[in-house]
Amino acid sequence: MADVITARADDYSQWYLDVVRNAKLADYSPVRGCMIIRPNGVALWEHMQRVLDGKFKDTGHENAYFPLFIPQSFLEREAAHVEGFAKECAVVTHSRLKSSENGEGLVPDPDSRLEENLIVRPTSETIIWDTYSRWIQSWRDLPILINQWANVVRWEMRTRMFLRTMEFLWQEGHTAHATKNEAIEETLKILDVYTSFAEDFMAVPVLRGVKTVSERFAGAVDTYCIEALMQDGKALQAGTSHFLGQNFARAFNCQFQNKENELEYVWSTSWGVSTRLIGALIMTHSDDQGLVLPPRLASLQVVIIPIYRKDADRVAVLDTAGRISSSLKDAGVSARVDTREGFRPGWKFNEYEVQGIPIRLAVGPRDVQNGTVEMARRDTGEKTIVPQDGLAVAISDTLEAIQQNLFDRACRHRETHSTHVDTYEEFKAVLDEKGGFVYAHWDGSAESEARIKEESKATIRCIPLNQEAEDGMDMITGRASKGRVVFARAY
Amino acid sequence: MADVITARADDYSQWYLDVVRNAKLADYSPVRGCMIIRPNGVALWEHMQRVLDGKFKDTGHENAYFPLFIPQSFLEREAAHVEGFAKECAVVTHSRLKSSENGEGLVPDPDSRLEENLIVRPTSETIIWDTYSRWIQSWRDLPILINQWANVVRWEMRTRMFLRTMEFLWQEGHTAHATKNEAIEETLKILDVYTSFAEDFMAVPVLRGVKTVSERFAGAVDTYCIEALMQDGKALQAGTSHFLGQNFARAFNCQFQNKENELEYVWSTSWGVSTRLIGALIMTHSDDQGLVLPPRLASLQVVIIPIYRKDADRVAVLDTAGRISSSLKDAGVSARVDTREGFRPGWKFNEYEVQGIPIRLAVGPRDVQNGTVEMARRDTGEKTIVPQDGLAVAISDTLEAIQQNLFDRACRHRETHSTHVDTYEEFKAVLDEKGGFVYAHWDGSAESEARIKEESKATIRCIPLNQEAEDGMDMITGRASKGRVVFARAY
Repeated sequence: MADVITARADDYSQWYLDVVRNAKLADYSPVRGCMIIRPNGVALWEHMQRVLDGKFKDTGHENAYFPLFIPQSFLEREAAHVEGFAKECAVVTHSRLKSSENGEGLVPDPDSRLEENLIVRPTSETIIWDTYSRWIQSWRDLPILINQWANVVRWEMRTRMFLRTMEFLWQEGHTAHATKNEAIEETLKILDVYTSFAEDFMAVPVLRGVKTVSERFAGAVDTYCIEALMQDGKALQAGTSHFLGQNFARAFNCQFQNKENELEYVWSTSWGVSTRLIGALIMTHSDDQGLVLPPRLASLQVVIIPIYRKDADRVAVLDTAGRISSSLKDAGVSARVDTREGFRPGWKFNEYEVQGIPIRLAVGPRDVQNGTVEMARRDTGEKTIVPQDGLAVAISDTLEAIQQNLFDRACRHRETHSTHVDTYEEFKAVLDEKGGFVYAHWDGSAESEARIKEESKATIRCIPLNQEAEDGMDMITGRASKGRVVFARAY
Repeated sequence: MADVITARADDYSQWYLDVVRNAKLADYSPVRGCMIIRPNGVALWEHMQRVLDGKFKDTGHENAYFPLFIPQSFLEREAAHVEGFAKECAVVTHSRLKSSENGEGLVPDPDSRLEENLIVRPTSETIIWDTYSRWIQSWRDLPILINQWANVVRWEMRTRMFLRTMEFLWQEGHTAHATKNEAIEETLKILDVYTSFAEDFMAVPVLRGVKTVSERFAGAVDTYCIEALMQDGKALQAGTSHFLGQNFARAFNCQFQNKENELEYVWSTSWGVSTRLIGALIMTHSDDQGLVLPPRLASLQVVIIPIYRKDADRVAVLDTAGRISSSLKDAGVSARVDTREGFRPGWKFNEYEVQGIPIRLAVGPRDVQNGTVEMARRDTGEKTIVPQDGLAVAISDTLEAIQQNLFDRACRHRETHSTHVDTYEEFKAVLDEKGGFVYAHWDGSAESEARIKEESKATIRCIPLNQEAEDGMDMITGRASKGRVVFARAY
């Protein structure tokens, strides 16, 4: 293993792919645009799932599971929605293969042509709102607070592992409410859940805001988002929470009898995060040596490497390593001794470094004698000799320190890569020279937004939720603006 | 809620569907053959997943995730495999929809016709063995012990919720080994895992055996299975573990250098259980009142219903209920107080009965005074007055007793529905009169097996692993047989 990892300074894109492959997170697949998520990648996703699922349940949500296939006619019901998804979707047209006429291989059996095409879900609003229209009659049936963990397919032309793949894993929440206010509250409550997950667990600071009309989810009234900044100065949308108004309820004729006995369309939200978060994690913390995992999401937090040359030392070293491992586990730290024979310690050091394990402990004969252990932090590379006595506390503290350091480092990077500009010249110069979030005035017009995107490849990532009121002028049109929005080039 | 549940004696099939719907496990969907798994159903599946996943990890397996789509050419590589799956599969042929010529709705865009059709995975041997052929070079790369949790699609014509649906959720293990013996050991190890899950958690006794050639998985050398017996006397295949020999390694040219430096094809296994297990659970334990859940798989084990008429009693009753709930949770029992207002206690009793919650506690003003509580068991309907003092222990014991009672009851049912027959007349009479497992001699010929299936709709469920040696005669051909196999009509 351990092929070369390209330096970030040389080629950031290649570095990213090298980390994904060397940390054994994912591999290419023979199906264009689809990846194989390897055990390290699935373990990370499962860890993220567990934390998020707990947060969803704590806020009153339950999991359900809806069909993979969407009848084509469902997609057509909501005008903006079909506009957004029809151009890149997997269409199932047949249900059987048969031998071809010339006897070479198989072809779809014409007799199995489906009466109605099925679309592999790109998202599930349509099939879920068809269902809700049968589940909801009265205000007593509301709210419905459902989430599902699922795979979805969007026929993307340019793909990159985790960041943009044809098939990806995600969760999608779909809630139904009796009032507009309650639905908006739900949208924002989920934005809070996503924010605390990104910042407290992933150690990724995020901006919270609203998307412009052109960047909105297809079918939404408002799309709220969290936006993170990667090391190379590009933004990454890490999660979205949509206030859907009554759009899908109208499309699927989902009405309820309110407390005043009047029929009303149901209010709704939807929200999701995906395996893309793994890409955000990598591009926020990792370095030229490989992956760097925040301790709160690392399935293995501490690896212990026994070191001995003479067989005489073997038993004592392994014994000490084992005792340390047990004491860490008792303290709620995930730890493992690497007892594999036939691999040099240096080779093992490198392997765990590439895979991002937060703390490495090395135990040799001298440590056995002295009651010490060598501790190495993955985030800083710093090595210290630590007494075995009280080690569990020292390790727990260090794990917390690593978590905090990763977050602080990412915050500093974001600060130094956030720039206020007032002219279009400045804007383009900042984008080209250091990238990052660029705060600029915008008059709210689609023309201005489109021209900037066309010319600079930068998009409005969001209108910040905590936007400061400030009088200014749109960089392009010179028209009045009441506050700055956040531009960036993005993944 | 609580529509009528048909009595089992009147119509077993309808009873099954009534239980599924009234216990809110699943609902019909607008996509033919697909179901919507409702929160109660997903919670049950997630619970099963957690237990099984733990067992897989304890036996050294890791989770990975492979693409949803299988290139058609992959399916064609293994002759028996394609024969088994090509006739019922979802074929993706296009990647885009566009407006139709007449402007009415959308059609697949001919320009987006895929060069190669993609099949929605019916199972993943082909794409996984293509991958393994790149991952495996030497004996040092073996074994690979991978599992995935996924959705799969088989275009079944006759579907029934949980038991046979077009899309279903499952796990599929795919392992690679250096030797034949190691692969066979793995196959049997997983059969043990499935057996202990079925018996110790689901409380469903299972027969363990090998399938005949005609019932084998498409591409397997041997298919091992666990077979359960439902209340109506029909069998249900609850899990399979396949020894695949070198079939898929050959089809995907997956060779490794063995310790003697020779190239050899890799040996393999695959194994799976699915949401079908939920059907098995229902049809083993449930009754005319609704679902009955074994305590070890019930997300909610104890529900506490506060009962009061006068507002004066409210606080004291809720207080006691809350204290009981806390003490149960402290003892590791999952418990909840149903504090909803506006629902009569009798209505609540019925709701939890339909949903199969193992124990119901009712707390009224008299219980507050006397330091007691009324406990009702879902499995027997038995009600007893129990002191609050020491309640957690009494509840834990009762949950264990319910678990054991369900298993014992199912074992007794299987015993009384297992019959040894020696003639074809007897065989048909037993099948028609009481169903169940019928132990009969078979000469090992496909002709005899096919004729019996054709005439009686019964199949050989398995050749039992612990088959007793016994000389006998095939019921049809009169040819010699060395032991009995197990016949049944099956789901």
